[in-house]
Amino acid sequence: MIGPKKFMLITLGEELLLGLTRNGHLTYIGDQLRQRGVTLHSNYTISDEGDDILDQFRFCWDRADIVITTGGLGPTVDDRTKEAVAEALGETLVFDKRVLETIEERFARLGKAMSANNRKQAFRPENAEVIPNDRGTAPGLWLNKGEKVLIMLPGPPNELEPMFENQVLPKLEALKYIEDQENYLQLRTIGVGESQLETDFQPLFDNYENLQIAYCAHQGQVDFRISYPGTENRMDQLLEIAEICKKQLGNQFLCLGHHSVSEVISNMLKARGKTLALAESCTGGLISNTFTDISGSSEFFLGGIVSYSIDAKQDLLDVPEGMIQQYTEVSQEVAVAMASGAAEKFESDYALSITGYAGPSGGTAENPVGTVYIGLHSPRDIWAKRFQWKASRASIKVRALNAALDLLRNELIAANSADDGANQDLHKEANNILKSLS
Amino acid sequence: MIGPKKFMLITLGEELLLGLTRNGHLTYIGDQLRQRGVTLHSNYTISDEGDDILDQFRFCWDRADIVITTGGLGPTVDDRTKEAVAEALGETLVFDKRVLETIEERFARLGKAMSANNRKQAFRPENAEVIPNDRGTAPGLWLNKGEKVLIMLPGPPNELEPMFENQVLPKLEALKYIEDQENYLQLRTIGVGESQLETDFQPLFDNYENLQIAYCAHQGQVDFRISYPGTENRMDQLLEIAEICKKQLGNQFLCLGHHSVSEVISNMLKARGKTLALAESCTGGLISNTFTDISGSSEFFLGGIVSYSIDAKQDLLDVPEGMIQQYTEVSQEVAVAMASGAAEKFESDYALSITGYAGPSGGTAENPVGTVYIGLHSPRDIWAKRFQWKASRASIKVRALNAALDLLRNELIAANSADDGANQDLHKEANNILKSLS
Repeated sequence: MIGPKKFMLITLGEELLLGLTRNGHLTYIGDQLRQRGVTLHSNYTISDEGDDILDQFRFCWDRADIVITTGGLGPTVDDRTKEAVAEALGETLVFDKRVLETIEERFARLGKAMSANNRKQAFRPENAEVIPNDRGTAPGLWLNKGEKVLIMLPGPPNELEPMFENQVLPKLEALKYIEDQENYLQLRTIGVGESQLETDFQPLFDNYENLQIAYCAHQGQVDFRISYPGTENRMDQLLEIAEICKKQLGNQFLCLGHHSVSEVISNMLKARGKTLALAESCTGGLISNTFTDISGSSEFFLGGIVSYSIDAKQDLLDVPEGMIQQYTEVSQEVAVAMASGAAEKFESDYALSITGYAGPSGGTAENPVGTVYIGLHSPRDIWAKRFQWKASRASIKVRALNAALDLLRNELIAANSADDGANQDLHKEANNILKSLS
Repeated sequence: MIGPKKFMLITLGEELLLGLTRNGHLTYIGDQLRQRGVTLHSNYTISDEGDDILDQFRFCWDRADIVITTGGLGPTVDDRTKEAVAEALGETLVFDKRVLETIEERFARLGKAMSANNRKQAFRPENAEVIPNDRGTAPGLWLNKGEKVLIMLPGPPNELEPMFENQVLPKLEALKYIEDQENYLQLRTIGVGESQLETDFQPLFDNYENLQIAYCAHQGQVDFRISYPGTENRMDQLLEIAEICKKQLGNQFLCLGHHSVSEVISNMLKARGKTLALAESCTGGLISNTFTDISGSSEFFLGGIVSYSIDAKQDLLDVPEGMIQQYTEVSQEVAVAMASGAAEKFESDYALSITGYAGPSGGTAENPVGTVYIGLHSPRDIWAKRFQWKASRASIKVRALNAALDLLRNELIAANSADDGANQDLHKEANNILKSLS
């Protein structure tokens, strides 16, 4: 690596500013560069107004080594990026016959008629190289200007992402503008606050000269990243420090790197050859979806029942009708019965159940909106726990997901330690419920 | 409204640039402003480096009327926003005893010990007003400087969002910096390309002077937003134009506004008093999750079975063992049987089933990774359709979701028109499969 290069990303599109579409390009490109030892310096999201593009592009071009733009290469009149950038760089736009032919071929292959406005997409700055786009009509562009590079990519993610991976990254690697690995180490913790973490670990970090630490808090989860800024790779030393942190954190250590709780659970289950099933009511498939996002999840995940109606709880999970009448469907008793039902129906080792009021309507005086019961069936035992949150419907679903995963993760850790004394009270309570069931 | 104000948003946090966290604040704040007639002018995502904050803040303060910052107000050493902004504005940071008391009270209430670094959070620019934070330790700040306003908010979404809604928006409204409704109209279309739309509709739009049109393509879906830029609200005229477009679009018109396909389906089902159930294999709960994200979905959504294992397909959906042996679990036959099984188990009017290979491993020569069969049971009929995509695991799940929703939406439209001739071939095919089942 010649020295760290400064990458800036300009994402164009009013829909991003109107909150109608997520800025997925920032996440994607940031992630791709991070995996190659580069931290994206900054991201600018602006609309398709020509003057604003010009102003912003000049700001970035003055300060960056590599400027990447996404979007604004479409066929419609509001796509004006190329014109603005060409003006800023003093480039002439030329008509590229070969690009037009590629677009025409594409339409012919799909058996569709090309609109006249697609011709617009065949213009490119004079000195720019075309980055072919196999999945759409707008080609990307690569322009070297002095020591600087401009990369322009189309907006649709299914076009941009293969172009970035198969064409842009290899070119950047050949120029030694990116590395082949990350240059920092991330420790993911769970159940401990950001300021507490800093208080606990700063004395340790103070022993290491030039060590840089960055904290990032999610809901109930705090990451900290350690690195030695500069060009030299000192991963061995970072791993040594991480090992000390890991020991000090105990159960609060989730993983090294970027794994989610569901991935950590998935690895534990696969390593032990154990299986999982779900019975979801208020989370409505969210937890199933989280596990099935993991490639290879069919090794341990047998399936789930989304029992959104009372009938489904009775007919598909064998929750006794009388129990629902006595305790209502949002109760510790029903959560236990749902977990037990799921484990039986799928013949799984572990089963999680979730029943609650995600709102905004529903709920009772005793169990208002935001009340969620989570049941867990394990080979050792079965129990349920009550949670209550004040939050939006979407947020309650996510919190229930996190709480359920946390219960399961702790049970998997506990199941591995012989003299585990935790969860004693919950076990007693669950045994009482079980007795009332039989 | 005194005149449209220019809002700029600075989102701080290296985790956004590293692609580790989505820029949810852009989506949230953009959406909130949009609903109040304001288009966020631009968004700047930068890391917590003091010099960069200073440079960026000066750029924005020169150009904007209102600057909003998010993040960088935490207790740790890498939180430096207040210092940088105070320097740029020539403000002194003062220690606010009342803020410290609030933080201390919070820790006492939670029964936790306050770390010394939390004291940092009690400093504020001399002329700034505190925006109380009920859910965390970092207060927000509001600073008037001449005609300009600076608003600083903490990073965690569950702290920022209630502060923005309950405190920031009312203040902006009192200043008449925001309105009480959107100032444009969006038409959402499905199954028609961006350039085709422009070709079809530009002649119509040319009849209206000063009408502004913006297009935005998603996967298989294109939105176009029409507006009369300026201060005057001309919503009646926009509605008239939309009515003409709607007629011309036919089935390709999805909705006015920002509803998703699942919301449109949800409204159709609720209006007709019909119910839905699901049998998901390779989508693994994604479709259930999509429907249960909609508030009030329990009115029509009875539930689903995530049959990730072959046993689950047989035991829970009554797919005959012999059928799976003969056709494999990824086949038109099994998709039909799954849809039929779901409708029966949940006693629903409609049922969708999805079985396929999401990859990256799996698949057969005949049905490689990316092959998905979608089955639909309706009161009129039952059939299944084959799809094939080349895409990532996550993308195949989303495409299968969209294809399934599209099938169901078209069936709901067709069921409403008496002389419908569509889907004839598929119906015939499905009847043959049904015969083979009996």
